[in-house]
Amino acid sequence: MREVVEICVTRDCEGPPIAREIWFIVTRFMQQKHETGTTMSLRCGLLAALMLLTSGASALDNGLALTPPMGWLTWERFRCITDCEAYPDECISENLIRRTADLMVSEGYLEAGYEYLGIDDCWLEKKRGPDNRLVPDKKRFPNGMKAIADYIHARNLKFGLYEDFGNYTCAGYPGVLGYEQLDVTTFAEWEVDYIKLDGCNVDRYRMDEGYPDVGKMLNATGRPILYSCSWPAYQEDHMLRSHQRDAGFLLKDSISDSVREGRWRGSGSSELLFTGQNTTAKAITSLLYSPNYKSIAKHCNMWRNWNDIEDSWSSLLGVMDWFGNNQERIATFAGPGHWNDPDMLLIGNYGLTVDQAKVQMAVWAILAAPLLISADLATMRPEFKEILLNHRVIAINQDRLGKQGLRVFQKKDAGERKGLEVWTRELSDGSYAVAFVSRRDDGAGYAAKFTFEEMQLPSDDYLVEDLFDEVPERKLNSDDEFPVRINPSGVKFYKFYKLKQNDNKSPPQADIVD
Amino acid sequence: MREVVEICVTRDCEGPPIAREIWFIVTRFMQQKHETGTTMSLRCGLLAALMLLTSGASALDNGLALTPPMGWLTWERFRCITDCEAYPDECISENLIRRTADLMVSEGYLEAGYEYLGIDDCWLEKKRGPDNRLVPDKKRFPNGMKAIADYIHARNLKFGLYEDFGNYTCAGYPGVLGYEQLDVTTFAEWEVDYIKLDGCNVDRYRMDEGYPDVGKMLNATGRPILYSCSWPAYQEDHMLRSHQRDAGFLLKDSISDSVREGRWRGSGSSELLFTGQNTTAKAITSLLYSPNYKSIAKHCNMWRNWNDIEDSWSSLLGVMDWFGNNQERIATFAGPGHWNDPDMLLIGNYGLTVDQAKVQMAVWAILAAPLLISADLATMRPEFKEILLNHRVIAINQDRLGKQGLRVFQKKDAGERKGLEVWTRELSDGSYAVAFVSRRDDGAGYAAKFTFEEMQLPSDDYLVEDLFDEVPERKLNSDDEFPVRINPSGVKFYKFYKLKQNDNKSPPQADIVD
Repeated sequence: MREVVEICVTRDCEGPPIAREIWFIVTRFMQQKHETGTTMSLRCGLLAALMLLTSGASALDNGLALTPPMGWLTWERFRCITDCEAYPDECISENLIRRTADLMVSEGYLEAGYEYLGIDDCWLEKKRGPDNRLVPDKKRFPNGMKAIADYIHARNLKFGLYEDFGNYTCAGYPGVLGYEQLDVTTFAEWEVDYIKLDGCNVDRYRMDEGYPDVGKMLNATGRPILYSCSWPAYQEDHMLRSHQRDAGFLLKDSISDSVREGRWRGSGSSELLFTGQNTTAKAITSLLYSPNYKSIAKHCNMWRNWNDIEDSWSSLLGVMDWFGNNQERIATFAGPGHWNDPDMLLIGNYGLTVDQAKVQMAVWAILAAPLLISADLATMRPEFKEILLNHRVIAINQDRLGKQGLRVFQKKDAGERKGLEVWTRELSDGSYAVAFVSRRDDGAGYAAKFTFEEMQLPSDDYLVEDLFDEVPERKLNSDDEFPVRINPSGVKFYKFYKLKQNDNKSPPQADIVD
Repeated sequence: MREVVEICVTRDCEGPPIAREIWFIVTRFMQQKHETGTTMSLRCGLLAALMLLTSGASALDNGLALTPPMGWLTWERFRCITDCEAYPDECISENLIRRTADLMVSEGYLEAGYEYLGIDDCWLEKKRGPDNRLVPDKKRFPNGMKAIADYIHARNLKFGLYEDFGNYTCAGYPGVLGYEQLDVTTFAEWEVDYIKLDGCNVDRYRMDEGYPDVGKMLNATGRPILYSCSWPAYQEDHMLRSHQRDAGFLLKDSISDSVREGRWRGSGSSELLFTGQNTTAKAITSLLYSPNYKSIAKHCNMWRNWNDIEDSWSSLLGVMDWFGNNQERIATFAGPGHWNDPDMLLIGNYGLTVDQAKVQMAVWAILAAPLLISADLATMRPEFKEILLNHRVIAINQDRLGKQGLRVFQKKDAGERKGLEVWTRELSDGSYAVAFVSRRDDGAGYAAKFTFEEMQLPSDDYLVEDLFDEVPERKLNSDDEFPVRINPSGVKFYKFYKLKQNDNKSPPQADIVD
């Protein structure tokens, strides 16, 4: 570490990538140390100076997102389709947004809670205007963004818009870097209600200060603008991997894989990194490389933690794995006003079956995740619409306690219950939502039983409501195990109401159960 | 190899597993050498003796399966469910078979060509009767198998039944080994029309003679009984892997992977195997380990080549990969009366979306694969039923030329058209069926163009019919590329009719095209 610090001694050093990289790590280490009280020692003379850089920014206080945001966003389904001649119904355009706005109202999505209508990347001209202002694509948005906002607001929807913290958006359109104040002013003038700020084309070490800065600017407009950050997604290890490969000193595999297997070592000359089988290595890694979620939760209403989700069951499972594997680091940062974001709902597109769609809806409810549909509402099949509009599942997602649930059971290896997972969330009325997920593909429903401990429920007598199927409630006694049968790549999703506790609200239909 | 041959010099040697293994390899080598004319030399003195073992059995000549068999089979969906109290609609029972027979007729499956109704594993009592006869489970088939046959035949369906070449079936019920003639006689008495003979619980080196023997017995009954063999599936390398691990001299990975990467070497003392980066190693491996498809095609109406398919897109892709990667070895053995079998259709179950279901239906049509539904016809959703009953796609599958199609284009690496495949089949009327498959999951349809060479079509003028969608035919001129747009995890499936050739039949609706 000594050698490292000597390479780069100021934040703005113009050294090689590795110098910036190391600077980031050292800074991050000091912030984490400051905030978590860790006692790891760092032998260099820059501690005091570094401490000064620790952010002292005040919290985002816009009163928004007291429950996870719900809405619709273009990206997952419509990507960066800009050829309106070839794809008139799919290109990112006024036409798509107006059609979707109408359908969100007429088809009951707004009534169910989906209120934000967001345009993701590819809405811009490739160059700013003569006044340096952002210019919406003139062909696809001929009336500009204020007209879009008016159309959306006239339907009691809210207007979401994408930008990027860097020099360019991920698709190569102008980013906000260097124009932050001007662009924030523009968004407010356009009456934008929600900004998704991506993190392409910028050094991630600038994010720890840059994202809060933009948040403060948004706050200062006086307009309540929900602030969705991609900040941690660019700092988690999948991004570090490529970044560090650029920097020339790592890695064949991802850091987490390498550390897990005890084979993480610097391959260059810097000897920055280490090798070892011990948990200390893991702890150090986690400390150095974990995004500063305390600051993120203070400055953002929601934040993408990880890779983009793609339209497949395998991608969904990958995202679920990441959120389950990292829940100890991230879950406590979720709460009213600030949410972890596992990315958009795939439901209603090409890659998920009906059963798989229920899995995403259930797990997103457990995770207190933003519910952002990204599908063509004009061609949505009724079985998928039914899942998206399931008011009981939405109620779990929107529970006012805002406590993110956890994966409490996972059977990966062979044997009984292989491929099953249990995800549990505590709710404001003292009840629990529990999702039993099967990753199996062996043809028929799989029957299994779970103990209270496995479900992480207090041992008690419960009334159990099936959240997807209209079947009678059933009772679970404190000395029983809970039996379920789960479809292949499917889910059973229940709400467990305590029967004995007087301070526990009764479920709506408890009296009709024998 | 010298050392090897010294270990085991007779077919019936009772040596350790490795000896049997080596005997099998040597025998197989000699058969392949005999049949393919390969000139590889083997330094041992047993050549002449081994040659005598080469099978001289006559062909199966039952006149069946002139086009790929179509029907319904229990396994993929209903597995080995035997608890009829807990699962009355799913257990392997008379009830399930009768219900399915009724639905195959009333819902139009029979009319579309699905004629075989097959019971897979788990229909037996665990022990043979006092006369050594097979006994159907007394609770689940209280009226015996002849009653089932009668019920099926009364509806103009044909009766399929599962057994196993070994001591036990894969689920542990009595196999035919040692009772082959008795069991074949029983099947004929029960009026079975189709036997699926699995290969669990038996040494695979016995299959090269045992499967033909049973086929001859089936022929000798005088009843035309379609013969479905699992013979090669137990000899392809995924089985060899576990088998050889048992034998103690291999392997960390599959043989094919190891050979491909040049790291196949014996890890035990036998030095049987070799290492190298060269293609000779590959050729030798292929020669030694490839099942004897010439004999298989002579003695079986169809044969499972590879792993069981499971109810997921990833499993389907795995099977497609295997059939694409091994097509040079296997495709030529398919033809009227004898077919490669990539396993059951998953369509209508839990793991495939509508688009993914179309992929399987299209690729199975290209492969001239048996079409065996394995789904609950009572709960089949209409969108899946429509795919299964698509008469234009079925017509491709059933084309009387019986020439198995090939994967002619595959883009695995990054860049344009990544994740796309093209599968082409030549048809009896001189036209071609071409399936354009996308393995992508990036949200929107993907547009691409293909040359005649890439589609492996003769450069010509064509009329092109979309086999899934009711859209007008379109023309393709000999100097054009063919543009398609494919849904994520989806397919476009077309029939290409030559326009100029006089000896080419016109498509049914050619005259309505402008």
